[in-house]
Amino acid sequence: MTASSNEFPIPDRMRAWVLGGPEELVFTEKPVPQPGPAEVLVRIDAVAICATDLEIISHGVPAKIGGGLPFNKNFTPGHEYMGTVVKLGPTVDEYGIGERVTVEVHAGCGRCERCRQGMYTSCLNYGEPQKGHRANGFTTDGGFAQYAVNHVNTLVHVPDDMTDEEATLVVTAGTSMYGLDVLGGLIAGEGVVVSGPGPIGLLGVAVAKALGADPVILTGTRDARLELGKRLGADHVVNIRREDPVAAVRRLTAGRGVHFVVECSGAPEAMNQSAQMVNRGGRICLAAFPHAPAEVDIAQIVRNNIYVYGIRGEGQSATHRAMALMKQKRFDAKLIHTHTFPLDQLPTALKYARERIEDAIKVVVKMPR
Amino acid sequence: MTASSNEFPIPDRMRAWVLGGPEELVFTEKPVPQPGPAEVLVRIDAVAICATDLEIISHGVPAKIGGGLPFNKNFTPGHEYMGTVVKLGPTVDEYGIGERVTVEVHAGCGRCERCRQGMYTSCLNYGEPQKGHRANGFTTDGGFAQYAVNHVNTLVHVPDDMTDEEATLVVTAGTSMYGLDVLGGLIAGEGVVVSGPGPIGLLGVAVAKALGADPVILTGTRDARLELGKRLGADHVVNIRREDPVAAVRRLTAGRGVHFVVECSGAPEAMNQSAQMVNRGGRICLAAFPHAPAEVDIAQIVRNNIYVYGIRGEGQSATHRAMALMKQKRFDAKLIHTHTFPLDQLPTALKYARERIEDAIKVVVKMPR
Amino acid sequence: MTASSNEFPIPDRMRAWVLGGPEELVFTEKPVPQPGPAEVLVRIDAVAICATDLEIISHGVPAKIGGGLPFNKNFTPGHEYMGTVVKLGPTVDEYGIGERVTVEVHAGCGRCERCRQGMYTSCLNYGEPQKGHRANGFTTDGGFAQYAVNHVNTLVHVPDDMTDEEATLVVTAGTSMYGLDVLGGLIAGEGVVVSGPGPIGLLGVAVAKALGADPVILTGTRDARLELGKRLGADHVVNIRREDPVAAVRRLTAGRGVHFVVECSGAPEAMNQSAQMVNRGGRICLAAFPHAPAEVDIAQIVRNNIYVYGIRGEGQSATHRAMALMKQKRFDAKLIHTHTFPLDQLPTALKYARERIEDAIKVVVKMPR
Amino acid sequence: MTASSNEFPIPDRMRAWVLGGPEELVFTEKPVPQPGPAEVLVRIDAVAICATDLEIISHGVPAKIGGGLPFNKNFTPGHEYMGTVVKLGPTVDEYGIGERVTVEVHAGCGRCERCRQGMYTSCLNYGEPQKGHRANGFTTDGGFAQYAVNHVNTLVHVPDDMTDEEATLVVTAGTSMYGLDVLGGLIAGEGVVVSGPGPIGLLGVAVAKALGADPVILTGTRDARLELGKRLGADHVVNIRREDPVAAVRRLTAGRGVHFVVECSGAPEAMNQSAQMVNRGGRICLAAFPHAPAEVDIAQIVRNNIYVYGIRGEGQSATHRAMALMKQKRFDAKLIHTHTFPLDQLPTALKYARERIEDAIKVVVKMPR
Repeated sequence: MTASSNEFPIPDRMRAWVLGGPEELVFTEKPVPQPGPAEVLVRIDAVAICATDLEIISHGVPAKIGGGLPFNKNFTPGHEYMGTVVKLGPTVDEYGIGERVTVEVHAGCGRCERCRQGMYTSCLNYGEPQKGHRANGFTTDGGFAQYAVNHVNTLVHVPDDMTDEEATLVVTAGTSMYGLDVLGGLIAGEGVVVSGPGPIGLLGVAVAKALGADPVILTGTRDARLELGKRLGADHVVNIRREDPVAAVRRLTAGRGVHFVVECSGAPEAMNQSAQMVNRGGRICLAAFPHAPAEVDIAQIVRNNIYVYGIRGEGQSATHRAMALMKQKRFDAKLIHTHTFPLDQLPTALKYARERIEDAIKVVVKMPR
Repeated sequence: MTASSNEFPIPDRMRAWVLGGPEELVFTEKPVPQPGPAEVLVRIDAVAICATDLEIISHGVPAKIGGGLPFNKNFTPGHEYMGTVVKLGPTVDEYGIGERVTVEVHAGCGRCERCRQGMYTSCLNYGEPQKGHRANGFTTDGGFAQYAVNHVNTLVHVPDDMTDEEATLVVTAGTSMYGLDVLGGLIAGEGVVVSGPGPIGLLGVAVAKALGADPVILTGTRDARLELGKRLGADHVVNIRREDPVAAVRRLTAGRGVHFVVECSGAPEAMNQSAQMVNRGGRICLAAFPHAPAEVDIAQIVRNNIYVYGIRGEGQSATHRAMALMKQKRFDAKLIHTHTFPLDQLPTALKYARERIEDAIKVVVKMPR
Repeated sequence: MTASSNEFPIPDRMRAWVLGGPEELVFTEKPVPQPGPAEVLVRIDAVAICATDLEIISHGVPAKIGGGLPFNKNFTPGHEYMGTVVKLGPTVDEYGIGERVTVEVHAGCGRCERCRQGMYTSCLNYGEPQKGHRANGFTTDGGFAQYAVNHVNTLVHVPDDMTDEEATLVVTAGTSMYGLDVLGGLIAGEGVVVSGPGPIGLLGVAVAKALGADPVILTGTRDARLELGKRLGADHVVNIRREDPVAAVRRLTAGRGVHFVVECSGAPEAMNQSAQMVNRGGRICLAAFPHAPAEVDIAQIVRNNIYVYGIRGEGQSATHRAMALMKQKRFDAKLIHTHTFPLDQLPTALKYARERIEDAIKVVVKMPR
Repeated sequence: MTASSNEFPIPDRMRAWVLGGPEELVFTEKPVPQPGPAEVLVRIDAVAICATDLEIISHGVPAKIGGGLPFNKNFTPGHEYMGTVVKLGPTVDEYGIGERVTVEVHAGCGRCERCRQGMYTSCLNYGEPQKGHRANGFTTDGGFAQYAVNHVNTLVHVPDDMTDEEATLVVTAGTSMYGLDVLGGLIAGEGVVVSGPGPIGLLGVAVAKALGADPVILTGTRDARLELGKRLGADHVVNIRREDPVAAVRRLTAGRGVHFVVECSGAPEAMNQSAQMVNRGGRICLAAFPHAPAEVDIAQIVRNNIYVYGIRGEGQSATHRAMALMKQKRFDAKLIHTHTFPLDQLPTALKYARERIEDAIKVVVKMPR
């Protein structure tokens, strides 16, 4: 019932990085997985490294839901990958062998209340693959390997003129897009602050500008990143080491504040600052979080009818919308790709990402071919 | 251009409570106000006391927006009133003289961006009556007087068989209704926790049950209030002095948590508890707030795709929906009305409300007639 | 991997009605089906007859999507059934053996764009069971048999104190509920017209009233049905043989019209009448349709900013909300149940339903036990 | 209380075109109007001609609501104008004297149920200026004159580098934008058909493409217009004289159809064709309408869960979003501007627009200065 092709011969075993204990990654061999119904086998061509990968490798999956920690379980991390469809599970006709695809993380179980509502990133069977849930690189095997299985829902076609490296950035852009989606979608001409110039924040700037937000204001601490934000579409940048970001936003908006904040910094004071940046009835998307509880002025939120949306990852098929913008070259996501290493040098790649060596932003691992 | 009737003769001056300095209320005389276009003059028949009245009298308007503090400005507080239309401003035909009406607080300016979106409780001209904004009892004169002016948008018809006292409770029920509205509306069969059995919480229970929520769980510290919650529709009540409310909610929902929390307690730990009571993708309405910043576990909100909605007062014409349920006797709001005093005994009424003398919940001031 | 119990022994073969050519139903034997992953086997206890069953038996599935007509395919119709879970497919723990359940029709494929949005009744793989889609009684085997397989998404628990017959009505009430959901949900105090007092219309009246709509106006041609509508909550009924329904609605609403129409008659003139019954910005749900194209005054829709929502069946898990109201006894759905026959007398039952013998409304087929 | 400036001296009387009987426009004098609270006086600099202007001049206001026909009432038509703020009504500080502004049509009354919901284009007091409603050029005086009064809600700032002519097109683009808004907003990567290459359709193509829709398909009968559609962003154009538009859309979308149709042709068959172009769950915006009732296959709408949104004009402040895109040069609206005449040659300008002389699309009338 599965379909494959001579053009893409599939070995029985593959090279893969496997997580032992915390921070113990071993480059080893394991069987090539098999796609089930509604699934395909993807030959991985490139993988980008996300800060969450570093977190998973060191501390485990953030949600700690279902199945516990990923250590010593023959688990392969890596969730920002792209590649080539090489085998189709039973009944699959949505994709064809040889097609280039990039992936998103969440395949909901399809059988819980949230999935039935279309809220698959809030799947109530998170971490229970036997019930159909997959979050590749989180709770099921991911992309630091030669092959991975993906549910068809988690694939996006890659256009011919897009490089492998750029295609790995689609899931990041999809998260940024989703953050703007939950804020309501109608952002043309509205003020948007993005706080934190990490990859999601930088592409948040790009997506907001592509959709016509005006002004787009980026706040952060590193001038190089802020400059990059300008190239991606920020109308204004604010280095919060030099100016209070709330005051700056008020200054840049003639005292009115903005309608929307996408909080990507995870700084402890960011929630309160966001609530002071928006005007009455404004909305805040929290796409990052501090490691410890933070002091929050709840009264500010209540008195001003502010709505706050926590998001984890890229829901509502936002990845497809992000790809649509990238395919139409509305912004140059490649600007955030800084380094490339071959698969066997993953530890070096992770080190570059973690320590921001040579101002690394997105570090990509390529499969030698 | 204004219309009045011999049946309701209107004096030039009226008796009114006027706020001097903090906590200085004086029963005095001032001119009867005149309704402008789209406004009517209401002869006040009854006024309920809200905790926010006590706050305003002691500390000023919570929002501190526009026009500053209300002290020594010839200001009359009181916002939960009802009465009889006795005079129509120019062009008014929406209401007729002699009709009984109850009121809601917010008349937006109608000319800012938020008002144009229908978000009049987030009016950007809050506190600027010259631009058309009114929040009677907050920023414009309220109901502890014989007469008040209301924009037609802030009126609701009172059915013949509803007492004056019950009609004063409509704005409270409207706030509860609005809290459920912002959570998305489709609550039949969904679990709802209401935390805090004050008037908004108790009527929140009543409205949630009237709309078919199941189970409705009320948490609080006072058994008498919790018992009242049961009579208003709570399926379960939890005295948080005796049981951890998060554990209780998990126990009562077979571990699943609820979809919605309406937070009406303003307790510092309520935000975190709410985030632990909802399941992934759950929603929290904050209808109260603590007096100081609170420690919030933001990661819990982000990881679980939780949305948090701050609300102040009763938007989206929720008061009309609340009245529709009350008119159809879907719940007995009168259960929260405990005491009645004549207008000239307002200080005693306020004391009962503030100190909860004789288990006072809603204390109503009636006009002698 | 499947689980069953000695308490509910399952035979290999079962009695089932099978559709040959149009209107050729044969009572025969066929194998008891097996539940797959996320599916259960339901022992059918009662089935209600829907007008669509008559349509399917005579003319085939209305949508004519996927797999073509159901004739001579060993197909068993019947979609409004309830029963007892007797076997669990692999991984199922959402339901337990021996639990009473009622069903809804649509299990989307879970892998198309619409299912991923939560719009499973708009599944783009409608009629392709190999891809996971099921519409029992439409494109997969239904309930005029002793057993049927259901995806867990299509089940609703039946409370102990609800009869089998009443439980078969939940899917009808769910359709009515869904019709109101798509209209926006906030209907307390708003005017709702339901046109057409068939089962969906009658329960539409009941659900609208349960949620606080006011007034609820039912239009139709048969006085007995209209009287029943009053017992289910209609504030006003209009016999359109005696009064023009548009004029009547205007009369009953002081000229203002209503906000919402749920069109359940399928009459050719209903679309235009609905558009004249709503006020500017009003909304119409089309839950029925005429057999031939109808003349529509599109200008009326455009000039007045009217929105029209076609719905087929019961989406957004509305069946759960309908059950929540029925469980809480907010209306008496049993009023529309008029006749009961044993399974082997299905042709008689269908005849009663088709010809409305003895004023039949809902005719139920019970399994002898 | 009103404010003016010596820089912009305002005469007592002005030149204005006034509508006598049908098609009787007279260039005459009348008093310069005075702005009231929340209003400004605009010195008109340019006006574009809309097909609805021709309709109003020949047949009256389409809605025929409130106040009846505009003939022989000293009425000045023209609603797509722009100009300079020259006088501020009482309390106005939202705009300053000398600022360039363009306008939108609808100022709701601010006191009916719809306005309070933010649905001001569905104002229930449409055509009742004494209650605050204004639709300049429809029910209140418009722009074929030297001056007009506008509510601040109906103004949009014009950037310095935008010509007067381009600024007159913002209200058209705003209507196109609103059409896409009501379809749900998230259109990046989704297929959109625009039927009818009139000004709203052509700018509908431009806005859809600017927001990332893909593919954008334009259907029509005139090749020159379709070519223009390509320059504005259409990925495909279909001349329906040469190819059946439904077949063409299926062909261009690999048989899947599109998610959204914006119907701008008003052709009698357009409703049915639209319903066949969308996939299940698709949405159709009707921004135009045929002059006579049309045959509609309602079953197609119901069976496929299609939603249909009638819109009249530009709601939800869409004009601001359209201006934001135009200001950021996301499309070149000027492409649809073909002819310019001075104010005193309005009849010639109207003739060009009506008869499409020299392929006229948007004909603009400029004020000599």
